[in-house]
Amino acid sequence: MSADKTPVTVVGLGNMGTALAQAFLDAGHPTTVWNRSPGRAAPLAEAGAVHIASIAEAVADSPLVVACLTTYEATIEALEPAAAALSGRVLVTLNSGTPKGVNALAAWASAHGIRLLDGAVKNVPDAVGKPETLLYYGGDPELFAEHEATLRVLGGDTVHLGDDVDLAKLYEQAVGGTLLPALLGFFQGAAMVTKRGKSARSLVPYTVKWLEMIGQVLTPMAEEIDKRDYSKPFSSLGLFHEGIPYDAEIGADGDIDVSWHEPMHELLRRGVEAGYRDQSISALYEVITRPRR
Amino acid sequence: MSADKTPVTVVGLGNMGTALAQAFLDAGHPTTVWNRSPGRAAPLAEAGAVHIASIAEAVADSPLVVACLTTYEATIEALEPAAAALSGRVLVTLNSGTPKGVNALAAWASAHGIRLLDGAVKNVPDAVGKPETLLYYGGDPELFAEHEATLRVLGGDTVHLGDDVDLAKLYEQAVGGTLLPALLGFFQGAAMVTKRGKSARSLVPYTVKWLEMIGQVLTPMAEEIDKRDYSKPFSSLGLFHEGIPYDAEIGADGDIDVSWHEPMHELLRRGVEAGYRDQSISALYEVITRPRR
Ligand SMILES: NC(=O)c1ccc[n+]([C@@H]2O[C@H](COP(=O)([O-])OP(=O)(O)OC[C@H]3O[C@@H](n4cnc5c(N)ncnc54)[C@H](OP(=O)(O)O)[C@@H]3O)[C@@H](O)[C@H]2O)c1
Ligand SMILES: NC(=O)c1ccc[n+]([C@@H]2O[C@H](COP(=O)([O-])OP(=O)(O)OC[C@H]3O[C@@H](n4cnc5c(N)ncnc54)[C@H](OP(=O)(O)O)[C@@H]3O)[C@@H](O)[C@H]2O)c1
Repeated sequence: MSADKTPVTVVGLGNMGTALAQAFLDAGHPTTVWNRSPGRAAPLAEAGAVHIASIAEAVADSPLVVACLTTYEATIEALEPAAAALSGRVLVTLNSGTPKGVNALAAWASAHGIRLLDGAVKNVPDAVGKPETLLYYGGDPELFAEHEATLRVLGGDTVHLGDDVDLAKLYEQAVGGTLLPALLGFFQGAAMVTKRGKSARSLVPYTVKWLEMIGQVLTPMAEEIDKRDYSKPFSSLGLFHEGIPYDAEIGADGDIDVSWHEPMHELLRRGVEAGYRDQSISALYEVITRPRR
Repeated sequence: MSADKTPVTVVGLGNMGTALAQAFLDAGHPTTVWNRSPGRAAPLAEAGAVHIASIAEAVADSPLVVACLTTYEATIEALEPAAAALSGRVLVTLNSGTPKGVNALAAWASAHGIRLLDGAVKNVPDAVGKPETLLYYGGDPELFAEHEATLRVLGGDTVHLGDDVDLAKLYEQAVGGTLLPALLGFFQGAAMVTKRGKSARSLVPYTVKWLEMIGQVLTPMAEEIDKRDYSKPFSSLGLFHEGIPYDAEIGADGDIDVSWHEPMHELLRRGVEAGYRDQSISALYEVITRPRR
């Protein structure tokens, strides 16, 4: 421990909260911990943390409070008895949730004079404090600057996304939207190859390469969207439109359900109708942001 | 050129065919070339290839014929006048297409006593012959073994997927199914952040990391599918099911069209109904392979 390190109170000692507290301890920050079930604090207390069983006293122990409970509702519930003690202090929340959830917490915090920063840990607890871990934050940039050095202890890449307190959760949601569709694409591929006696496993290396390729085309496509200029297509919307019958071919035997493609095909048809046939597939951005009335 | 290298005839000298012919030349194979528009053969002739303007004579010049035209229809059209000359020889097709297309070509080839192997080049023409280029093939394994050394000249990773001649195109289709859904997920994310004054570009690094993460979970999920055992979920179907309202939240203002999620939500609901709530999300494989009647 060193006198120039900001003291931190960590609230919530689940898998993630424990990893956060340990990272602060490892970096020499005076660390106070609190958890609803007090038993979970024992290993950290042994490692040098101060365990305080009263939430109000625990938050009063540090200028910076980092909370990592399951949800925003749980966070408000746990912190309610400590609202007065938190007044004027900085609260950093690192749980999962939605922009709506953060905004509800922000309203509560603001009513109690609590300065709020919200972030997301983009890795597993074991990787907290390591170079490969990214954390991003949204909220008051001065508040971020004030505590940036302390927050950098938690990972190798620490980013301030912007002034809105719900930006970290907005980006989480914006990024997360590819997960279910990409997995379904893979499950459908697995259905195609297992039907022919091949293993789903045999498809993995090729799909991994393919996902890498998709990652590489996102930069030019994002630039097309930012310029709203789709006129020099890397891959045209029309090409995808021509591919529609091939999805039907996959389902032709009736043993693979390809119906989940239908509204995507409809977006392609609307893209063609709107004149984007020879433009980039990224023009679908225009189609989904101008919904049919 | 060396006497122990199999002579090859390359048919179709578009961007890809030219790269293939150049790779054979670079590796010292006697290389004969043919293209419908003869002008495209000039650079290869200068580099040491033999240019023959008659398709029948061109294929008769080598035991191994590699064709790379736009489609299977174009391939049959171009090779029709050379069908007799091809009899008893090996034809390797490397164009894009569908399993249906390969099977049509295979029927034609078989009728003329032509031995067919079909493959796919999983990279751009510039990368042909380089270690980073993957090629995979489907068809008679003896035929593959016979010409494997020559085919290895075209890339760093040369795989025989299995005995069925349409397997390369089947795997292409199986892998390709993630593209449109993953891109749409990204375009939706772009719609969310640009609405808040952020650039689509700002979303790219996080999405790229996310795609890497998706790539990492495919191996355990493929193993679940191959064992048809979803009982030890890494990520449960129920968790995705609980996330359904968040997609609606994204579309709540009416300025982002999220309707393309609806049939995916329906698959999740059917998964829960079928008893997979606490099992792995990969159990969606069971849902899409047992379509509603
Ligand atoms: N684990 C990961 O890989 C990971 C990665 C990134 C983000 N996250 C996010 O980080 C957050 C925490 O995850 P975790 O893995 O640490 O979860 P966890 O191990 O289940 O721990 C949950 C914590 O929340 C506390 N809690 C829940 N409801 C409460 C309430 N009403 N009042 C007081 N305390 C309450 C629990 O206290 P008790 O001990 O008393 O039950 C426990 O400390 C979640 O939002 C999660 O999505 C997790
Ligand atoms: N380029 C890539 O990045 C890439 C990557 C992987 C796979 N592929 C696949 O490889 C194949 C060829 O691609 P490419 O980029 O080389 O295309 P390309 O540059 O457009 O060349 C097309 C070739 O097909 C010939 N052709 C078309 N129809 C014909 C017909 N009816 N009779 C005779 N010849 C005909 C053309 O002859 P003319 O010169 O006389 O028109 C030309 O040689 C495609 O299936 C493509 O999807 C390409």
